[in-house]
Amino acid sequence: MYKVIAIYGVPKDLAAFEQHYREIHTPLTKKMPGIEKFVINRVLGSPQGKPSQYIIAEMIFKDKETMEKAMASQEGRQSGKDAFQMATGGLTLLTVESQEA
Amino acid sequence: MYKVIAIYGVPKDLAAFEQHYREIHTPLTKKMPGIEKFVINRVLGSPQGKPSQYIIAEMIFKDKETMEKAMASQEGRQSGKDAFQMATGGLTLLTVESQEA
Repeated sequence: MYKVIAIYGVPKDLAAFEQHYREIHTPLTKKMPGIEKFVINRVLGSPQGKPSQYIIAEMIFKDKETMEKAMASQEGRQSGKDAFQMATGGLTLLTVESQEA
Repeated sequence: MYKVIAIYGVPKDLAAFEQHYREIHTPLTKKMPGIEKFVINRVLGSPQGKPSQYIIAEMIFKDKETMEKAMASQEGRQSGKDAFQMATGGLTLLTVESQEA
């Protein structure tokens, strides 16, 4: 599998971020062509102390070509643009190849 | 679901890291009591430029209690200690609650 992983830092206004994420960003992201799953991982803590990460989101695709097409699509570009606007605590986007060990 | 997520920075010696990850770290991690899946996400790239992350690993558990017991177990502590020794490019450990959106 292939994934786009979005690592969000802790946003400045939690309530505004949550509302935008739920009402605007999630429906926008789920419109990406070929997306199989959209998984939201909410950070609870870290054995290293207070984490600077808030959410790690996974957009999951069956293969690399489908992922690349989705990122280049209008829906993908809209979701990306929206993510950076929303991410007042910073955002790192990564593409990954995923395998069970 | 609950996960421990390990974000590894790009290591100093790729070959040594890969060998250690495959031969020592993976079997050690899979011994953690209650672990359902160990997923390795290898970073391919980023639309933001050359990424500083190398691997994002997920240790997946059915519930929070199982995850916490696994982290506190001898096997969990061994895996954690090994991870920090191996992570010459840095390591961030996070606990997360995971849901499909």
